[in-house]
Amino acid sequence: MSFTVAFQGERGAYSELAANNYFKPITKDSMNLLPCESFQSVFEALSEKVCNYGIIPIENSLAGSVHENYDHMKRYKSHIIGEYILRVEHNLLAFEGAKLENIKEVFSHPQAIAQCSEFLNKHKMRKNLYYDTAGSAKMVAEKGDKTIAAIASVQAAEDYNLQILQSSIENNHANFTRFLIITLAPLSTFKKQSGIKYKTSIVFSLKSTPGALFKSLSVFSLRDVDLYKIESRPLVTTPWEYLFYLDFDGFFTDSPVKRALSNLSEVADNIYIFGSYPTK
Amino acid sequence: MSFTVAFQGERGAYSELAANNYFKPITKDSMNLLPCESFQSVFEALSEKVCNYGIIPIENSLAGSVHENYDHMKRYKSHIIGEYILRVEHNLLAFEGAKLENIKEVFSHPQAIAQCSEFLNKHKMRKNLYYDTAGSAKMVAEKGDKTIAAIASVQAAEDYNLQILQSSIENNHANFTRFLIITLAPLSTFKKQSGIKYKTSIVFSLKSTPGALFKSLSVFSLRDVDLYKIESRPLVTTPWEYLFYLDFDGFFTDSPVKRALSNLSEVADNIYIFGSYPTK
Repeated sequence: MSFTVAFQGERGAYSELAANNYFKPITKDSMNLLPCESFQSVFEALSEKVCNYGIIPIENSLAGSVHENYDHMKRYKSHIIGEYILRVEHNLLAFEGAKLENIKEVFSHPQAIAQCSEFLNKHKMRKNLYYDTAGSAKMVAEKGDKTIAAIASVQAAEDYNLQILQSSIENNHANFTRFLIITLAPLSTFKKQSGIKYKTSIVFSLKSTPGALFKSLSVFSLRDVDLYKIESRPLVTTPWEYLFYLDFDGFFTDSPVKRALSNLSEVADNIYIFGSYPTK
Repeated sequence: MSFTVAFQGERGAYSELAANNYFKPITKDSMNLLPCESFQSVFEALSEKVCNYGIIPIENSLAGSVHENYDHMKRYKSHIIGEYILRVEHNLLAFEGAKLENIKEVFSHPQAIAQCSEFLNKHKMRKNLYYDTAGSAKMVAEKGDKTIAAIASVQAAEDYNLQILQSSIENNHANFTRFLIITLAPLSTFKKQSGIKYKTSIVFSLKSTPGALFKSLSVFSLRDVDLYKIESRPLVTTPWEYLFYLDFDGFFTDSPVKRALSNLSEVADNIYIFGSYPTK
């Protein structure tokens, strides 16, 4: 059996690494990877059934939540089957046979270049901005010049047959991205399995009446349902209306969760359940 | 009199546009702009006193909050003097004399290319990924080739003497970025002015004890202090500990706000006030 996972980016992107790390330990089926131009095209691939799953970044410890992906998840009525938290390790990649002391020029996405500034300054390497980390690895592999290097994932080293001259060169090692693995399967097809700790993710909207947010959180607190994540987002098209994202403990069919959600519908609008999935 | 504002990016970046839009209506002093390589270098410029203010993006309606900038604000003990909300309008920029129908190749940051995909597909323009929107404008200006174009801000058109072939070509017009204008002045030097509606931004940390978040929000709700923004952020270095970001109504010396903050210190740790500034 084989299955296909869509991700945004080129071969060697951090999303591809996350897909491998998530699926390889849990299945022996062979996995095909489908690189997509944009986050939206990952969702289009799902709805055109050219893939079984999508993998999307939803938050990063430095860059925050990717609101756009919450919008797509709701619009395409997709659901979460799992999450994977990847430590973003930047590596210096070069052509086979290159030596660290001979590297003069380094290419990568501006954000990766900035995140590795201490290493690059120490080794007096010239910084060159490139559109993408994986794209810079691809370019270095094509050029075959042993005085240039790219900053990218270990996955990119593997995909483009590059050598890792130095691993984990980022200034701040506390750089994590949380990925969600999604399908178009309806929520009713998800069944709770025993022995697994679940979390549930939802979104709802509130008119900005004083105390509305407090009331909507009370429905969880009153039933001892612990909150993991809470985030407000102003609706730019309708001033004074907000979206709220919550992650909380439990499965959507658990009795305290069901009662909290029913209570929530009295104070909030447009509740959408993204899914209940094993906590990592 | 003149003053200097530091921003991340090259001349023509959206941050430069936001700086002009924020400062030009409120001062007749002449403004110097200092382009910086990274967000951190904006803060370094502030602490080395080579600029008076910094302008940083703090959240985008599609991409979420920029956690990294919250970290820098706290580490460098900086405070917010104001905010500016910019609609991100992408424009097709070309060399003087170029015509829309002759444009074959378009260059820009991958995110801007993805955000203008409908326009680019309709006009059958080839997409080329570039490290930066402003950088792509600079390159088009230097090449002087009338068959290529960049996607960038109106500020980039002005800075590099390019022609706007078509304005506002983004798929989704609800793309807004909120910028903060910051200084290193201590909080005690900020005085409330009458006739102005203020908001206050803070961060604090909580150990994940059941109900701790609910208690910390109650201190505002009990005093009818309205919340505008709430966002949790897991501390990756210390599992089960969270940071919370709040924006709420009022000035930090207002009596209900003072009492709420004093009450908050009983349930939360490491409270830092980013500042009280006029609401936009």
